[in-house]
Amino acid sequence: MVGDLAILSPDYRRYVGNQAQRMAWSLQSGDVLVLPVEPDESFLRYVTSQLKIERSSVEVLVPPPGIYGDGVLSRDRLADEGFRRRLRRVVAERDVRKVLPFHFDSNIVSLVKWLGLGDVTPGFGFLEQGGGRLLNSKSTFRALAGGAGVPVPEGKVCSSIEAAEVFMWTELLSRGFPGILKRDFHVAGFGNEIVSPVSDVEPIGALRTVVVDDRAELAKYLAERWDWLTDGGCRPVVIERYFVDSVPICAEFQVDDQGVEQTGHGEMRMAPVLNGHVWPAPSCDLPAFGLFLEAARRLCGPIHAMGYRGVVSVDAVVTPDGDFLINEFNCRVSGSTHAYHIAERVVGLGKSWDRVLVEQRRCTFPRVSVAVKALRQSGLAYDHDARCGVLIAVDDNSPSGGFGEYCVVAEHMDDAQAIEAEIADLFAAITESIATRTFDAGAGA
Amino acid sequence: MVGDLAILSPDYRRYVGNQAQRMAWSLQSGDVLVLPVEPDESFLRYVTSQLKIERSSVEVLVPPPGIYGDGVLSRDRLADEGFRRRLRRVVAERDVRKVLPFHFDSNIVSLVKWLGLGDVTPGFGFLEQGGGRLLNSKSTFRALAGGAGVPVPEGKVCSSIEAAEVFMWTELLSRGFPGILKRDFHVAGFGNEIVSPVSDVEPIGALRTVVVDDRAELAKYLAERWDWLTDGGCRPVVIERYFVDSVPICAEFQVDDQGVEQTGHGEMRMAPVLNGHVWPAPSCDLPAFGLFLEAARRLCGPIHAMGYRGVVSVDAVVTPDGDFLINEFNCRVSGSTHAYHIAERVVGLGKSWDRVLVEQRRCTFPRVSVAVKALRQSGLAYDHDARCGVLIAVDDNSPSGGFGEYCVVAEHMDDAQAIEAEIADLFAAITESIATRTFDAGAGA
Repeated sequence: MVGDLAILSPDYRRYVGNQAQRMAWSLQSGDVLVLPVEPDESFLRYVTSQLKIERSSVEVLVPPPGIYGDGVLSRDRLADEGFRRRLRRVVAERDVRKVLPFHFDSNIVSLVKWLGLGDVTPGFGFLEQGGGRLLNSKSTFRALAGGAGVPVPEGKVCSSIEAAEVFMWTELLSRGFPGILKRDFHVAGFGNEIVSPVSDVEPIGALRTVVVDDRAELAKYLAERWDWLTDGGCRPVVIERYFVDSVPICAEFQVDDQGVEQTGHGEMRMAPVLNGHVWPAPSCDLPAFGLFLEAARRLCGPIHAMGYRGVVSVDAVVTPDGDFLINEFNCRVSGSTHAYHIAERVVGLGKSWDRVLVEQRRCTFPRVSVAVKALRQSGLAYDHDARCGVLIAVDDNSPSGGFGEYCVVAEHMDDAQAIEAEIADLFAAITESIATRTFDAGAGA
Repeated sequence: MVGDLAILSPDYRRYVGNQAQRMAWSLQSGDVLVLPVEPDESFLRYVTSQLKIERSSVEVLVPPPGIYGDGVLSRDRLADEGFRRRLRRVVAERDVRKVLPFHFDSNIVSLVKWLGLGDVTPGFGFLEQGGGRLLNSKSTFRALAGGAGVPVPEGKVCSSIEAAEVFMWTELLSRGFPGILKRDFHVAGFGNEIVSPVSDVEPIGALRTVVVDDRAELAKYLAERWDWLTDGGCRPVVIERYFVDSVPICAEFQVDDQGVEQTGHGEMRMAPVLNGHVWPAPSCDLPAFGLFLEAARRLCGPIHAMGYRGVVSVDAVVTPDGDFLINEFNCRVSGSTHAYHIAERVVGLGKSWDRVLVEQRRCTFPRVSVAVKALRQSGLAYDHDARCGVLIAVDDNSPSGGFGEYCVVAEHMDDAQAIEAEIADLFAAITESIATRTFDAGAGA
């Protein structure tokens, strides 16, 4: 989804690979979990106990490291013969009939076919003929959004540098608006840049902000970056108005043979730092929210009709004026999918939610057994009776630290924030005490 | 639709430009017709009289020749300022509210927007954001056909040369089947080649047939042609099994806000020469025809849901076994659209047809006034009472000749073929007599 994996630093690849532990929250009894990085056994016991399933009822497989190491499930790793044979055996033993990959790309298609699961996989006919790639394109999003008539940022799919310059200058920069330029096939902002007529525009969802003062500077920027923006002239680039001080939100849907079902909605946490999500989206109190949800569901109509089956995550920005503008969809497991599984399977939330879930990413944890014990002793751990407390969503399974994620379940946002402060203190204290003890032990040796 | 117009010979561009006269059969009172080549006034009077509308009720505009001459409506011609101003004035005077281009590409989108007709054009939101291009892709066809589960030739969308070689060899050539390789964005066979393990495979709908004897030769072929097949690595290539001795047929649908309506179906004439179509398709008597029509309509479902509005032409082949396999759709005016308009507006055919229409392409005619008179005198001209006879569908408006098209309306195929033989004799006699007279006149001068 990022094109060449080599553009990701080894550290970032490990971060992303570690994040794959989120998939553990989707486990059900009898499942097989394939991960890029070997998880800590304590973490698996912790998650399965929260999900109230037996640890022994699920199998975890990790293919050998590949050309990009063990951070991501690269194609060569999924093609490893020993891994494939083990997987096929386990799939047969357990009579597995459903596949939930993070993203149904051509490598997963070939693996699923090899496992003999193509016929039972909903939407496989579409995926097998490149449907995943088709929907993973930002120009496809623009066309379908235009077709569905949903509110989107002013924008254009540009195949020529002349068209890009005219649109960018006439419709955006000359009117004082920044624009975001999106490469057709990239994920998580890795293919996006912002071009702005004013400085101090923070590049949220983009690599950087480039300030241009006049049309000549814009032309110079486009000439320099056109090759990168268009994959060497191969693909169009999507240009949209970029809204400063807007809040990114997302609504998630499950698209299956029966139709389109809303799963939930969330919002990116912008302050004090950009760190994780909160579910449900606090913006749901705004007057236009109902119309946004209706539009997001309408956009799933063509995706369903085209033959895709699975998760659809619809992204939007809430402008300072309270308008909701849809700016992307993603047909894959999203950064919220595990949270909806936690909400449903651990917290027991259904159609109407009486809890908020708040996520912190890039946290440093002690070893998971220590962290879980500390949470329990301090009374912060998730309590199944009170349906409140802290869950370790992703183990900080990295020597350098900072890859962990936790999720606070609370009745109100205020409570959640109070708990977050307590956790920070608790983990800081543990880390310090471990460091001291290690130091003491080292000194005493 | 062919990528670079320069790949077409000047002669072929004039042929295609001349063919645009078919659009005259879609005229209704008050319309404005834009053509690449100035039509003969006699032809316009002929068509309007057949359609029972006043010649004076329609306006015909031809923009000045462009960088590719006057054969095709290239972008520069549609952008010509004088033409645009004239068109806008006429559109305003006549209160025109509907646009029927041959293909709704980005040039037409920009013209329609400039004319202020975007808001009243169904599907404009989709088209404005590159929807036309999205649907004009053969890989999109494969994904949507896979999603709709319609019968298609065994095939694959290949992004890598390795995948292409494996599929082509394992699934096709080694089993004795030829394959057709289709570039993603090309029309009318200009981007298709056939690769066959046996010789004597006629390349219908393709540029040529390449015979390969073994896998090494296949690898060599792919290595040589990969750049061409993939537009320099930019696009995937679609590979499908190619059926020798199969008959190409097409079903046409009108997709509008209300839904999907079938317009008709036709078949390509394969013998004695590949020349034009016959409507309805004679294959409609085969047992599987009903299922094919149902599948073709199902395939229009996602196209409708995506937001396209207009003509959808679904192509298929009828194999020697009587199977119908869908191998393409085209979201634009087709080579049959004018015939359905003739059938409806001239012959008065509705849901059930009591006539067949048979087309001859690439015919040489005398001047249209002479040809019409000769048809009338010989009793071959279309008769509105008998609802039978010959219509000149496209004037042979070219000094070199051979660009004309006529359409025979008859009760049965046998009658139509008898009339065809008579026309051939008639036109041959006229051409000879004109040549003789011209020679005599020249000799006498």
